[in-house]
Amino acid sequence: AVRLRVREALGAREPADAVRVQGWVRSVRSQKEVLFLHINDGSSLESLQVVADPSLEKRDLTFGSAVEVQGKLVKSPHRMQNMELQAETIRVVGPCDIWSFPLKAKERHPLEYLRQFPHLRCRNNTLGALLRIRSEATAGIHSFFQDNGYVHIHTPIITSNDCEGAGELFQVEVSWAKESAEKTHFFNVPAFLTVSGQLHLEVMAGAFTHVFTFGPTFRAENSQSRRHLAEFYMVEAELSFTERLQDIMQVMEDLFKTVTSTVLSKCPQDVALFRKYIAPAQKVMHVTGKNCNPVILSSSSCRISYSEAVEILKQAPQTFTFKPEWGCDLQTEHEKYLVKHCGEVPVFVVNYPYDLKPFYMRDNEDGPQHTVAAVDLLVPGVGELCGGSLREERLPFLESRLQRLGLTDAYQWYLDLRKFGSVPHGGFGMGFERYLQYILGVDNIKDVIPFPRFSHSCLL
Amino acid sequence: AVRLRVREALGAREPADAVRVQGWVRSVRSQKEVLFLHINDGSSLESLQVVADPSLEKRDLTFGSAVEVQGKLVKSPHRMQNMELQAETIRVVGPCDIWSFPLKAKERHPLEYLRQFPHLRCRNNTLGALLRIRSEATAGIHSFFQDNGYVHIHTPIITSNDCEGAGELFQVEVSWAKESAEKTHFFNVPAFLTVSGQLHLEVMAGAFTHVFTFGPTFRAENSQSRRHLAEFYMVEAELSFTERLQDIMQVMEDLFKTVTSTVLSKCPQDVALFRKYIAPAQKVMHVTGKNCNPVILSSSSCRISYSEAVEILKQAPQTFTFKPEWGCDLQTEHEKYLVKHCGEVPVFVVNYPYDLKPFYMRDNEDGPQHTVAAVDLLVPGVGELCGGSLREERLPFLESRLQRLGLTDAYQWYLDLRKFGSVPHGGFGMGFERYLQYILGVDNIKDVIPFPRFSHSCLL
Repeated sequence: AVRLRVREALGAREPADAVRVQGWVRSVRSQKEVLFLHINDGSSLESLQVVADPSLEKRDLTFGSAVEVQGKLVKSPHRMQNMELQAETIRVVGPCDIWSFPLKAKERHPLEYLRQFPHLRCRNNTLGALLRIRSEATAGIHSFFQDNGYVHIHTPIITSNDCEGAGELFQVEVSWAKESAEKTHFFNVPAFLTVSGQLHLEVMAGAFTHVFTFGPTFRAENSQSRRHLAEFYMVEAELSFTERLQDIMQVMEDLFKTVTSTVLSKCPQDVALFRKYIAPAQKVMHVTGKNCNPVILSSSSCRISYSEAVEILKQAPQTFTFKPEWGCDLQTEHEKYLVKHCGEVPVFVVNYPYDLKPFYMRDNEDGPQHTVAAVDLLVPGVGELCGGSLREERLPFLESRLQRLGLTDAYQWYLDLRKFGSVPHGGFGMGFERYLQYILGVDNIKDVIPFPRFSHSCLL
Repeated sequence: AVRLRVREALGAREPADAVRVQGWVRSVRSQKEVLFLHINDGSSLESLQVVADPSLEKRDLTFGSAVEVQGKLVKSPHRMQNMELQAETIRVVGPCDIWSFPLKAKERHPLEYLRQFPHLRCRNNTLGALLRIRSEATAGIHSFFQDNGYVHIHTPIITSNDCEGAGELFQVEVSWAKESAEKTHFFNVPAFLTVSGQLHLEVMAGAFTHVFTFGPTFRAENSQSRRHLAEFYMVEAELSFTERLQDIMQVMEDLFKTVTSTVLSKCPQDVALFRKYIAPAQKVMHVTGKNCNPVILSSSSCRISYSEAVEILKQAPQTFTFKPEWGCDLQTEHEKYLVKHCGEVPVFVVNYPYDLKPFYMRDNEDGPQHTVAAVDLLVPGVGELCGGSLREERLPFLESRLQRLGLTDAYQWYLDLRKFGSVPHGGFGMGFERYLQYILGVDNIKDVIPFPRFSHSCLL
């Protein structure tokens, strides 16, 4: 018998005689004359209907059990599905103790409930759809950059660069070091989990012009927020010979468009589930047939300067917990208001105060150390999705800034990049989980990653 | 002027009038009548030849400087190259202080020398070629699995599973915890950097049937070996409904074949550099034209059982530092001998002693706890490239083994996977850096990763 994945069986054009399908039972319906099963193997949201003689039913053929079914693949008489499997044999490969199994047949479990079972929740329809989408988005990100001539770089996870992240760093120690009297570091220097691959990408942009990375990043934020994780994924790109912030914003938009189109064309059923059950009011994804038209793709996305943003906030009819003031960070409440003010569309905020931003951002020279060429992309429901900037490529500017910060020694290698063939360059990062939250309308970031890590929680 | 990458300019079919190329100068040759430059932007190993009037030469137009050249793209009169650029303007974007620049024009720097400059070595031809190959291999791995219906999973980097790795684990702490009196853990439990995504992949194989992951893994090995890193990348796959070790070995082979073919077809020049300069005696890659025929692809790869391996070693005419004995681990010297004995071809060693292998491997039942269905793939020059096994899917077998090890409580969730629709399954992992070492003949693993981390060293 030919082994078929459920997806292949459902999409088959022709009936086939000897077919074998393996998967997990999603439903058992026993009638007098006929036994109906639905078999799912994770290759698609849709399950394959199996039609069998009631004599094939057995005690351990239950919801959640693993089965192997052999039989004939035939055209289904039902309008809603293409093919069904007429079973000749049904073998229960692995039974399921349904009384202790936390997932129940035909129940729509809340996402909060499922979070308690990180080892089982992927068998739920919503999490299954989410993880298939995540997988396709991952492939889409790699393809987008590869197709556009970027070299992929594995930036390091463990790094000795500690100056940027301050208190939010995770430190890495060998487990046996604590017992040793001298407490020598494994790497001879204190080592931390990366908060961004940017500086390492800048190294590589000096050789390959266009580079990207897509990997885990870490923040030891003591937060239970629905938008923060201690371990999350970031897509970062760096472009040499780039002089305009506009060019960085263009790559952000192109990336978003291309990956979102890929997801929509590869997983239409999975996306539809989110539109139907998770975010029915979500206006982000305007899916018409196979067309994708997220708001960000249209011309309606908004672009304002930081200074304009502060003016808008100052004139707002509402009072904020944090009073908007030029030179202060935009708070979540401010971001929300700006997005609303612009009509619930994505908002690019550009040119932030010099003192608010890290040392590597490029001075706009619109006043003495007044603003830098930075951009944040704020989106409805999620807040900051992307952040980017032009980098300071001019050696004297960078030298004097690092000196004032007392970081000259630590960043000698970074200054080297400006001594040997320095070029105007810039880049950005996009939070991958926030991207998924945004396109699917998922409220809590813990539901868009397979194994969420956050303060007080590291299950499995 | 149309901006072209060097690769595009070199591959252009037609001459073009107004072309702009940006990159770094690899050579300057000034003759009486003409100035020759070679410009590289990392899009290919080959540089673009620029032909200019000597009047365009300036003091800071040196090796390593960044330039922008505008002019006409014309057919080159030279047989070895297709196109060249007739410069109308040359602008030095960023000069290079050649006296302090550690890379020198026309010098073939040893790889050991380059390792001292992790922020600059990517501008060297060999490292450039390596990183382009690494990028294509990465894309090839994602495509291979995606094309074969695998779902990509981001298995966690930080994990509370500590039972497997024993002394070789890195522990993760928040940097501020050490100062606090109570030393509470950020995650409430001790947390470690992952040594393998396998157990988490098994969770996912129970929902999606075929899954893979490709990410960083960590070992705190106090080793300066040319085959070990503290941070390295692993490709891991897990397959449900798989009963034969042979099927796992088949996926290993298919993965190797497909990715290697991709690399050869995408980066023929880069691969040729390694064959010419790095591993001229390397017999691994038989490249004929565009064909790829690594030894592993032919039928000559060898398959022996662990017991056979021990017999071969016992009958060896040489003496080993570690005496070969059934029940003991194969040492590097043993692996080398086995590969040589089989004719310097890849060797699959299967069915290892039960007590040598982790708890999750499947008992072959060929005696009371005698051997498990495990496989290691040994390759010439590198040693162990892949390791895999069938997993113990039978609840009673797994329960009793965990009980004997005192791990029942810690692995309750793992036992759950066997209670709810358990299926025969298996999987494997392939060390990505070792794969690159093997196909390219690179002696030291530190030269096949952008930023190597090993004991006493964490540069940048």
